[in-house]
Amino acid sequence: MGLVVQKYGGSSVADAEGIKRVAKRIVDAKKNGHQVVVVVSAMGDTTDELIDLAEQVSPIPAGREFDMLLTAGERISMALLAMAIKNLGHEAQSFTGSQAGVITDSVHNKARIIDVTPGRIRTALDEGNIAIVAGFQGVSADSKDITTLGRGGSDTTAVALAAALDAEVCEIYTDVDGVFTADPRVVKKARKIDWISFEDMLELASSGSKVLLHRCVEYARRYNIPIHVRSSFSGLRGTWVSNEPHAEQGARKVEQAIISGVAHDTSEAKITVVGVPDKPGEAAAIFRTIADNEINIDMVVQNVSAASTGLTDISFTLPKTEGRKAIDALEKTKSAIGFESLRYDDQIAKISLVGAGMKTNPGVTASFFEALSDAGVNIELISTSEIRISVVTRADDVKEAVRAVHTAFGLDSDSDEAVVYGGTGR
Amino acid sequence: MGLVVQKYGGSSVADAEGIKRVAKRIVDAKKNGHQVVVVVSAMGDTTDELIDLAEQVSPIPAGREFDMLLTAGERISMALLAMAIKNLGHEAQSFTGSQAGVITDSVHNKARIIDVTPGRIRTALDEGNIAIVAGFQGVSADSKDITTLGRGGSDTTAVALAAALDAEVCEIYTDVDGVFTADPRVVKKARKIDWISFEDMLELASSGSKVLLHRCVEYARRYNIPIHVRSSFSGLRGTWVSNEPHAEQGARKVEQAIISGVAHDTSEAKITVVGVPDKPGEAAAIFRTIADNEINIDMVVQNVSAASTGLTDISFTLPKTEGRKAIDALEKTKSAIGFESLRYDDQIAKISLVGAGMKTNPGVTASFFEALSDAGVNIELISTSEIRISVVTRADDVKEAVRAVHTAFGLDSDSDEAVVYGGTGR
Repeated sequence: MGLVVQKYGGSSVADAEGIKRVAKRIVDAKKNGHQVVVVVSAMGDTTDELIDLAEQVSPIPAGREFDMLLTAGERISMALLAMAIKNLGHEAQSFTGSQAGVITDSVHNKARIIDVTPGRIRTALDEGNIAIVAGFQGVSADSKDITTLGRGGSDTTAVALAAALDAEVCEIYTDVDGVFTADPRVVKKARKIDWISFEDMLELASSGSKVLLHRCVEYARRYNIPIHVRSSFSGLRGTWVSNEPHAEQGARKVEQAIISGVAHDTSEAKITVVGVPDKPGEAAAIFRTIADNEINIDMVVQNVSAASTGLTDISFTLPKTEGRKAIDALEKTKSAIGFESLRYDDQIAKISLVGAGMKTNPGVTASFFEALSDAGVNIELISTSEIRISVVTRADDVKEAVRAVHTAFGLDSDSDEAVVYGGTGR
Repeated sequence: MGLVVQKYGGSSVADAEGIKRVAKRIVDAKKNGHQVVVVVSAMGDTTDELIDLAEQVSPIPAGREFDMLLTAGERISMALLAMAIKNLGHEAQSFTGSQAGVITDSVHNKARIIDVTPGRIRTALDEGNIAIVAGFQGVSADSKDITTLGRGGSDTTAVALAAALDAEVCEIYTDVDGVFTADPRVVKKARKIDWISFEDMLELASSGSKVLLHRCVEYARRYNIPIHVRSSFSGLRGTWVSNEPHAEQGARKVEQAIISGVAHDTSEAKITVVGVPDKPGEAAAIFRTIADNEINIDMVVQNVSAASTGLTDISFTLPKTEGRKAIDALEKTKSAIGFESLRYDDQIAKISLVGAGMKTNPGVTASFFEALSDAGVNIELISTSEIRISVVTRADDVKEAVRAVHTAFGLDSDSDEAVVYGGTGR
């Protein structure tokens, strides 16, 4: 039995009862002979409450102090978790990101991990202790200031520690039973995926699946750390994410499905730049403007130019939260670039089909479009990669579209039972 | 203008409004040309809430983890305070106890400061910043673990930093206007003391005055750091505590009163060991038992032995919170020591008169007892030092006793106005 890194999210440690339940699970792993390192997020709504306080004292909280503030959240949960474990008769020590050796760059609020030096964690483990580590936080190499890792930071902390400690597996405990073939709130017959490759998981994550964030999966792939996503409530086997499936990971290679799953995303908006002169450099000027404002865009489509006018339309999607900024930036360059007008549309949805199997199955794209057509869903934009097809539709059509595609590719569960979510009902 | 250390307690930073008010006061000091270091406690009830959470997960929280938990409180308040200051257009940086160089021993929950190495604070000040430091916490020299300083820890942090940084003054901001000649909630005519010596302040603190704790005053006396106790609400000049009064400290030496004030304390209980054989070593055995259980005692009185029996009674006072432990420990040694029985009484009060002037004024003790007698207050125990007389009375008599003594020694204010407390009404 080797070393296991377990990560528990805020909903798993939302109150004293949750902390005690998690403590018991950790002790069980220890009793099974594992060395156990636990990464924990802030309790329930703590982070939101701290952000609210910050906004009350300052409309634009400063980066360094904001990070100092937010890291109080994990400090509370990790200390309580260590106490709860000790109360079960096992030794536990909690460590801040800094104490655990999580070294980052100096970009406050969204720092990147540049090194992990877990000397104190090793010592704690060698002394037979369970090590509890604050997720989401680190210390900057340059200034020695406290930093936070931004969204999904605790998952990334867990994977980074698993890599640095050469762990057998990084277990991500959450409030769902694993990664599903579609969002079970939309598709009742969605199936839990037993095993999925890093590549497919990366595509699902960037297509709207929220169970694991892209950044965490990318880190795990780079260091080849198997991730096991599972429920902190049910204790069932969840979804393994790794390079190759092992027998214990619930799937054999021959069984690998052509399609891993269907993801959807309603957090994006579409901007159409109308009447762009169809000549070299125009599109570049538009996207340089967007890039200079540090706005990430997703899909890009340029319509065929109408020969009569010499003008074309360029559409792209981006997070709704960046919409205002993008429109403002483009308006300023209107005369320089020479387009006619801008259209903004935030009533869109993106539906993506993901699976490495589609590389060698030429009929997938056709089947995908047929399924949408049969369901009466109109396609507005299309974008493809080797292992993913994404389309943009009306937001109103999203549920119907996801269900139709899920059924068409044989992903529906045989069981009629609704998928069981974790115990909190969150 | 030199360096000022300001300390704000939890009631001064209880909410966003409080934090903004305190930020403004700090910025004012900076505008007046001072270098400013601020020590801040956890917001309002934060610490109590964290203790409550700890008790929910573990009946006896472990020292190391308990300290890790509690220090989250100051982390929140210091970061918010720094943000609020930056929002007023001034630069501020917050530092944990560890970052500020507060080095302690390894006794969790009540660590003692053994060194202060404020290199990062100096750098922040040299760069023109205001430095915000978490009170109540440090880092242990041996284990590098986070420690807390126990009760009154933030005041001690402030004085220790003031000493290490060679500050002009350590300003302790609180919710009252300063140190009073008696508790204004009991004596309406209590007067604010303009200046008091370290020695008298130490006696008041150990006699029940809660404005400053003994430990903090002791530290200030050792390093000769003047303390200015004042209200964070009113902005009025408060009470200076120092070796010698300066003109600006609102009192000249010739005006020094014989009596500084009257303190009372209802947090103690009395244990009487009845029927102790009056022979050498008996008292020692009793107090060795108490000391071995790490119980601090206060007053001790041995009655005159009754010649007929050869037995005597020994009474002592101790914190009510230690009462159970002391009784249990003594019961176990009953046969070995050979006393008859134990009496426990927690309905007592201690009233103390403090003033260096009483050393050279022989009538003080007599006047004190006469005042109590005239008020019909019975005296149960008496203990004296060079600059203090303390008596134990019934708890029910405490208010009357304090008022009678306050009046008898001419401490009553000329004004009929009630003393104004701070703005929160806490």
